[in-house]
Amino acid sequence: MHIAITGAAGFLGQRLIRRLLERGELQGEPIRRLTLIDQVEAATPAVAGVEVDAQARDITAPGAFDAMLDARPDVIYHLAAVVSSAAEADLDLGLAVNFDATRALLEGCRARGLAATRLVMASSVAAYGGELPETLDDMTALQPQNSYGTQKAMCELLINDYSRRGLVDGLVLRLPTIVIRPGRPNAAASSFASSILREPLAGEEAICPVPSDLELFVMSPGRVVEALVHGAEVPGECLGSFRAFMLPGITVSVAGMIETLREVAGQAAAERIRHEPDPRIQAIVGSWPTRFHTRRADALGFPRDTDFREIVEAFLADSAR
Amino acid sequence: MHIAITGAAGFLGQRLIRRLLERGELQGEPIRRLTLIDQVEAATPAVAGVEVDAQARDITAPGAFDAMLDARPDVIYHLAAVVSSAAEADLDLGLAVNFDATRALLEGCRARGLAATRLVMASSVAAYGGELPETLDDMTALQPQNSYGTQKAMCELLINDYSRRGLVDGLVLRLPTIVIRPGRPNAAASSFASSILREPLAGEEAICPVPSDLELFVMSPGRVVEALVHGAEVPGECLGSFRAFMLPGITVSVAGMIETLREVAGQAAAERIRHEPDPRIQAIVGSWPTRFHTRRADALGFPRDTDFREIVEAFLADSAR
Repeated sequence: MHIAITGAAGFLGQRLIRRLLERGELQGEPIRRLTLIDQVEAATPAVAGVEVDAQARDITAPGAFDAMLDARPDVIYHLAAVVSSAAEADLDLGLAVNFDATRALLEGCRARGLAATRLVMASSVAAYGGELPETLDDMTALQPQNSYGTQKAMCELLINDYSRRGLVDGLVLRLPTIVIRPGRPNAAASSFASSILREPLAGEEAICPVPSDLELFVMSPGRVVEALVHGAEVPGECLGSFRAFMLPGITVSVAGMIETLREVAGQAAAERIRHEPDPRIQAIVGSWPTRFHTRRADALGFPRDTDFREIVEAFLADSAR
Repeated sequence: MHIAITGAAGFLGQRLIRRLLERGELQGEPIRRLTLIDQVEAATPAVAGVEVDAQARDITAPGAFDAMLDARPDVIYHLAAVVSSAAEADLDLGLAVNFDATRALLEGCRARGLAATRLVMASSVAAYGGELPETLDDMTALQPQNSYGTQKAMCELLINDYSRRGLVDGLVLRLPTIVIRPGRPNAAASSFASSILREPLAGEEAICPVPSDLELFVMSPGRVVEALVHGAEVPGECLGSFRAFMLPGITVSVAGMIETLREVAGQAAAERIRHEPDPRIQAIVGSWPTRFHTRRADALGFPRDTDFREIVEAFLADSAR
């Protein structure tokens, strides 16, 4: 089993690598080789019997995927992307990284006859937008209101068509908001969703810029990684007529998140959250859909967090490792 | 008013040119100039006071739109496309003509600051597919099951994003099956839908390859052209959060079409239809959605045929011109 991962140095890529090496196998085959692509060489723990080739590559450069694809990977995880704020700030960069590089990857698979290679790509809840219904389902239109979501939605269509034509065996998973991310607050509009848990749990203050009744559609990093692993193993013939769908997150309000923090870490932790409304962040995050019937993902056995308490406890267990 | 039209030599392009010249104005401004692009020089009736520049261009060639865009058209109709059977037979050709050329057109507008130029593009019912509901609406997902529909759906997303960013003033209209097309039967799966009316009306035999209870979602050529004209005139601020939607066709069964033929042209005409089932055509045409709530198009004042009899009578009137 040879697995290639783009965006391998990122948060999700690193979690995925760790999980794959813990498992030791994918699709029932022992993992013998990892090809890791990112702008910088991805860190990888040395594991006996697994050959690791970490390549620093600009994926927008011609031939960036050649070495990776010449080695005929069995599974490709395509996680490399320019994030939403950067894609919004620079249309050319977003199109080059998020769309053109994906198309080059598909063309590379096609040119090499990698019809049986499972290509798993990450899309996003940001691909949804417009006049959305109260509860979304697998047939809700993607009408993105940002360039990142637009580029992801275009990739979904292209991967579906290349898969339908038998040129690759693709699958695109739309990710909910990932909570609790490790690290520090960042410029993402959703940064607070991790921050209001992570910082108080570490004894630090956090700022909550949104009203307590605001809801989010969230998934823990551990479940996202499980979903990526499962995405490599679901048989292509079960994927139906469209190779992209939303992963099963859970809907939680900010008040519910804070209540869980109180249950797990006490009143003092909950009091470390300062409420400082920020209309700009409210406007962005408030426009994201939060209720989905994820029938296709459910039917295919993709995992779901049980409740928000499980998410917090998994974060604490991860942090203690 | 300077109007540019790609695909100007085609059936729709020619009908649109005729209609625009009859009107003499668009957006309340007298039409002074037409730039017509196609693989061959488009035919144009000479009209006093209208400068016509018909250019033979391969729109996949670099700079194909340069001369047209340098002249800063007020309205662009982008009708040029490789049809569905050709896009299915040749993926590279379909991507080059249907997607890359549209992207080049958008980039050309962006480079020249044509933010106020209304770009009207034709998309198709073929962009729908997959596990569709009984009745579709403006928020039904595009999950195309053919490369043509995939490429059109990608263009919709890109035009929406360029419009959202204020780089062009775009609008994409998804066309129903156009009935009654003039001319002769062709290789299109939907060819019979025009043929079973057109040939009997001309005293000739026609073959109906589908069951009488099969339904179609249709629009007359005259109404499609009216919709294209209206598409240039709807103010951008009324177009809401997504710049693409389905035009209001009418749902009609093959039996209903034949009954209308009988009413208009008599029993002898209806008897000129031979029923020869073709499972291949039934499979393709039977998968197309036929029932839509076209709320956005209706609210924006796009026209709808009154009933199928009106479509047949308009065809007879056109033929007599």
